[in-house]
Amino acid sequence: MSKDFYSAVKDRRSIYGISKEAVTSDEKILDILHHAVKYAPSAFNSQSGRAVLLLGDQHNKLWDITKEALRKIVPPESFGSTEEKINSFRNGYGSILFFEDQSVVEGLQSQFPLYKDNFPVWSQHSSGMLQYIVWTSLEIEGFGSSLQHYNPLIDEEVKREWKLPDKWKLIAQMPFGKITAPAQEKDFKPLEERVKMFKQ
Amino acid sequence: MSKDFYSAVKDRRSIYGISKEAVTSDEKILDILHHAVKYAPSAFNSQSGRAVLLLGDQHNKLWDITKEALRKIVPPESFGSTEEKINSFRNGYGSILFFEDQSVVEGLQSQFPLYKDNFPVWSQHSSGMLQYIVWTSLEIEGFGSSLQHYNPLIDEEVKREWKLPDKWKLIAQMPFGKITAPAQEKDFKPLEERVKMFKQ
Repeated sequence: MSKDFYSAVKDRRSIYGISKEAVTSDEKILDILHHAVKYAPSAFNSQSGRAVLLLGDQHNKLWDITKEALRKIVPPESFGSTEEKINSFRNGYGSILFFEDQSVVEGLQSQFPLYKDNFPVWSQHSSGMLQYIVWTSLEIEGFGSSLQHYNPLIDEEVKREWKLPDKWKLIAQMPFGKITAPAQEKDFKPLEERVKMFKQ
Repeated sequence: MSKDFYSAVKDRRSIYGISKEAVTSDEKILDILHHAVKYAPSAFNSQSGRAVLLLGDQHNKLWDITKEALRKIVPPESFGSTEEKINSFRNGYGSILFFEDQSVVEGLQSQFPLYKDNFPVWSQHSSGMLQYIVWTSLEIEGFGSSLQHYNPLIDEEVKREWKLPDKWKLIAQMPFGKITAPAQEKDFKPLEERVKMFKQ
């Protein structure tokens, strides 16, 4: 699918009503993920971003892991709503896990000690950019998705389950699926309070 | 101007050779900044991102401030190359300053203490997304730009010069201008090392 950049920016939303129905091929999903990972910018072109695409039972497993991790810490009387929320993500077609490879970040820190404290922050910026590109790409292809953060609660089990390198730090999770309910109305703060121009 | 999202993602680059020539109207620049700030996602729709557009002498002033701040800390024998670099940004048509409003972040922290440590991180993700949208939009309009980080060195003077709220935290600076030299070739790591798929 193809879409004008500005329209894609405008139309990307957090979509919570998703189902297991496919709206495009798995190859297409992997293609857009490859495109996003390849072209997302990173400090000093360090390419620290990593992504894992989970489909089918693998996707279900992610949310089962999350549910069981939450069961251990959420009071039983409020676990019902927690479970319902996790099930709504599990209802999706797949999930994308976003990581930043800390071996890359640490490599930059030892190579450029002057910016030591900055590289972890820039790595977070770069991850945000990557998440954004994937999110918007999924929207263009017709999938609804949202950004979730059950890290660091699920980090160890995720790494163990999919045998991921120890230096991959989990940053965010993005469940996606066919849209079953549209996004709600969104409120916008006045732009005059957020953007200033100085010109002379 | 209009451009397909995937092409825009592919074509966005760091451009260091920029001049003071306009390639679009100032109103158009402000429009794309408004569009980006309005539609960039933020945790809990908190809309913590802030942006300042500096044009003409105001843009020059930013880089003069940066140069003088650097003169105080860079050894005199290496200041020549520092000055040259800063002048290359000053050679541009304008600059965009990206901030995150800490009063918004702190408000979320007191409202949702459970996620206290997460909000500053999510605010950085959101800023990265905003920077990315603006960067790509400038590219679509024909401007070259790059992302610079002279914060926190210039924070106090920037706030004083443009009388910005004390809670606006400077995150990044983006000089832009007419492209006078193309981006260099970019190396890409193998995608097999960066993206994994699990499906069954």
